[in-house]
Amino acid sequence: MKDTMNGAEALLKTLIDSGVEVCFANPGTSEMQLVAAIDKIPGMRPVLGLFEGVVTGAADGYGRMADKPAATLLHVGSGLANGMANLHNAKRARTPIVNMIGDHATYHLPLDAPLTSDVPTAAGLTTDWMRVCESTENMGNHAAEAVAASIHGRQANLVVPADLAWTEGGHVAAPIEPKPREQVDQLAIERCAELLLHENSCLFLGGISLRDRGLTAAKRIQNASGAELIHENAPARVQRGAGRPTVERLPYLAEIAVERLEKFDHMVLAGAKAPVAFFAYPNLPGELTKPDCVIHTLAAPEQDVIAAIEVLADYIEGKGKSTNPETQDRKAQDLPEIPAGKVTAQGVGAAVANLLPRDAIISDEAITSGAFFYDYFDEAACHDWLNLTGGAIGQGLPLAIGAAVACPDRKVISLQADGSAMYTNQALWTMARENLDVCVVLFNNSRYAILELEFSRVGVQNPGERARSMLDIGTPVIDWCQIATGMGVKAGKAETMAEFRHLFEEAMATEGPRLIEVVLTS
Amino acid sequence: MKDTMNGAEALLKTLIDSGVEVCFANPGTSEMQLVAAIDKIPGMRPVLGLFEGVVTGAADGYGRMADKPAATLLHVGSGLANGMANLHNAKRARTPIVNMIGDHATYHLPLDAPLTSDVPTAAGLTTDWMRVCESTENMGNHAAEAVAASIHGRQANLVVPADLAWTEGGHVAAPIEPKPREQVDQLAIERCAELLLHENSCLFLGGISLRDRGLTAAKRIQNASGAELIHENAPARVQRGAGRPTVERLPYLAEIAVERLEKFDHMVLAGAKAPVAFFAYPNLPGELTKPDCVIHTLAAPEQDVIAAIEVLADYIEGKGKSTNPETQDRKAQDLPEIPAGKVTAQGVGAAVANLLPRDAIISDEAITSGAFFYDYFDEAACHDWLNLTGGAIGQGLPLAIGAAVACPDRKVISLQADGSAMYTNQALWTMARENLDVCVVLFNNSRYAILELEFSRVGVQNPGERARSMLDIGTPVIDWCQIATGMGVKAGKAETMAEFRHLFEEAMATEGPRLIEVVLTS
Repeated sequence: MKDTMNGAEALLKTLIDSGVEVCFANPGTSEMQLVAAIDKIPGMRPVLGLFEGVVTGAADGYGRMADKPAATLLHVGSGLANGMANLHNAKRARTPIVNMIGDHATYHLPLDAPLTSDVPTAAGLTTDWMRVCESTENMGNHAAEAVAASIHGRQANLVVPADLAWTEGGHVAAPIEPKPREQVDQLAIERCAELLLHENSCLFLGGISLRDRGLTAAKRIQNASGAELIHENAPARVQRGAGRPTVERLPYLAEIAVERLEKFDHMVLAGAKAPVAFFAYPNLPGELTKPDCVIHTLAAPEQDVIAAIEVLADYIEGKGKSTNPETQDRKAQDLPEIPAGKVTAQGVGAAVANLLPRDAIISDEAITSGAFFYDYFDEAACHDWLNLTGGAIGQGLPLAIGAAVACPDRKVISLQADGSAMYTNQALWTMARENLDVCVVLFNNSRYAILELEFSRVGVQNPGERARSMLDIGTPVIDWCQIATGMGVKAGKAETMAEFRHLFEEAMATEGPRLIEVVLTS
Repeated sequence: MKDTMNGAEALLKTLIDSGVEVCFANPGTSEMQLVAAIDKIPGMRPVLGLFEGVVTGAADGYGRMADKPAATLLHVGSGLANGMANLHNAKRARTPIVNMIGDHATYHLPLDAPLTSDVPTAAGLTTDWMRVCESTENMGNHAAEAVAASIHGRQANLVVPADLAWTEGGHVAAPIEPKPREQVDQLAIERCAELLLHENSCLFLGGISLRDRGLTAAKRIQNASGAELIHENAPARVQRGAGRPTVERLPYLAEIAVERLEKFDHMVLAGAKAPVAFFAYPNLPGELTKPDCVIHTLAAPEQDVIAAIEVLADYIEGKGKSTNPETQDRKAQDLPEIPAGKVTAQGVGAAVANLLPRDAIISDEAITSGAFFYDYFDEAACHDWLNLTGGAIGQGLPLAIGAAVACPDRKVISLQADGSAMYTNQALWTMARENLDVCVVLFNNSRYAILELEFSRVGVQNPGERARSMLDIGTPVIDWCQIATGMGVKAGKAETMAEFRHLFEEAMATEGPRLIEVVLTS
């Protein structure tokens, strides 16, 4: 390597020195110097996505599983916009990511060339950490700061003007030790303990608390206090399965969630925000707790949530017996039987739960098809369950890519609705390209079923032809096996439970990407 | 219909009354009232896209051909973001579009529900006309203003909070007569005439000037003055073909464009901005005219460009003979012979030019594969040629949808590169759904060939394995016939020119969507 470095090389080398190992990329002309830097400097694995939504969703999946950032490489404002929906999901998941967003050369921007847009404003939409590189000399520093800023669950967006990247004079910066998570003070913990012990309260868990350690401590709190445990509807990552503490999931539908929560006078938050409805509906509340329920924060998502739960557990156990009534928490559900006959979403859920290999990772974007089988997995082999955190569909397949790249020794199962899969179907190609060990279970109901439901919930009954034409995706029916095969992924169709079981067992027994199209008829 | 209307109904009825006939849509929960309004009130044709990039690109294609806006229906910030790349292209094309972007209910926004994002800021990125509806009563007015604002080539972005849409009390607003285009003053015209007659100058055409009327007048200017005519590299729409005036296209590559323009001391702009390089490169200028070339504006894109050119033509013809040397303008190129043998991009270009049906519409996103065949179409049957205006790839297939919806009696031919096609491949499904008369000619070279070129142009030679892995999209090879068939579009592969010719002639002889995969090997 030559003695001096250009800006791109300094940026890249700093990222590598700071522990970033993977770059999900869809570069364009203005990022060619970063491509050259990845090419030249060993230590960064580039993974190409054929659309930026794949790139950013993969970085989200990687970060959730690796607990450290992947980098992305995005091409100017339009590339960033294409990746923004999954960056939104990643923001809601609090996933660490370092986005490198190329932009025109500084002196080219005023010319308003065709691809020019307001990249800095766009780059600020999904994070509060955004830097426009202003000199070649500083690019290394920016990179080190970006990694440190991201580490506890934030996107760090670096806008990289092309000329600063290609100019010589870059300096590699030393890694920056990230600030530790803020500790929760003892008084807050004791206050929460009193509530959980003596009031009609529940402990509402989210974010980082849903890992083994957090769940184990939460269960101790439940056992000692009788307080109920509920977790967010769509947390980024939950560690689940036989032998692990089971926590109830808050239902998606606002009316059911409200009913579930109406008994609580107090809610204690651990790594979660207070639960609100996904959408507003006429005549339904937005806050899901009852109006006079008091919300208390044990630990905010960015604090050291797990330590706070553990200290709380110790404290409560030290206090002796609760004055609360017996807990009514849901117990772990036994593994369901696998039904026979025609394939159904619930049947497939039962089969996957029963046949799940140990340490699998599930990327769940099954939407309505998955509405009923979450609990089936309580006693499945231990696994990590990843949810659609931000509601921006098209997350599931890219997330599976990132999880598989982060955890090459674990099977990734993508439980995927058809309508959402269409958004980022290009992900299948990257699975083939990288020979990732992902099994996509594609629920083809040929409908935007969630929208049919929502259409009635906003107060409109009996859709006519024009409305149905915006909710039906079955004319023509999409053949997912052809799409998958077209992108190099081996695929098979299941119309019966026996066919599904055969295909799924085969997928579990072999490595590499597969797609099983579950043909649902109603 | 009941006596009162809700906000959504008032908005929609106003759009219809203002002449908007088509809504390209991918709605979500927060847009269900708009879906219901489309359902209930006759006059708006909904066209579903399975990804918002399809929706917005289709609206662009529609607006370019219809010269009036389509509406779009987009789901909150993530739906808008997904559609933003093609809105960027539409902005650069100056296409009229009315975007309806749903958002959470006003009172739900502060709860920061999972899908909440800063929609107004995002909605302001691609236009200077953005309104957040603030009351149900005003939604009709906003709709009328949006149509009027859009008509001469602007996006009008309406952010529609769900509760305002579902509340009763909407009022249908009367259509607003759009302001006419601003006229160019006579002095500016006379000044430009002197330059074109007596100085070393060229008339640089763009935007609306490239329609029949503008081109005819421009040719009169050329004949009378000897001034050369050149048009933008990627104008929104050019009317071309046998019997029409031929205008030279400015080359894409900056170094070649600079060479072409270096002789001119003056450039007169008609509906175009002064030409700049697509990207900056080390040691290349950004402005493509020579440093001391003086730029004069005959008519800015938003002015009445065509009238200005016509007045200029009259004026110049009245002035008598030019003192300029003979024009060196490129003459129309004869139709090329169709070669035999293995299929090539140029051969396909020659075949399409020869076999083009009258009044076809060409959506060109062939990128490198199309680099050499633009001139082949000089003497093809009359057609409209649509370009990738903003450089954000993924435009071509959606644009073809919109053109086909706007012009159901004309054949649409989509000349499409593979890498770009992947971005919005979901467009194929909408072509099948709506049985659109689109023939996609898919150039499968399995490479980001433009990036291979750009990689060397930024000064990097000999890409290594990691760089190549970000430029090669041929591992695995994408089978476009399978993807198309999977989405309901009849498809065939051409490896020889004879196969291509057979498939293309068959496509021209029948109606409905087709894809011809041109398998390029190098």
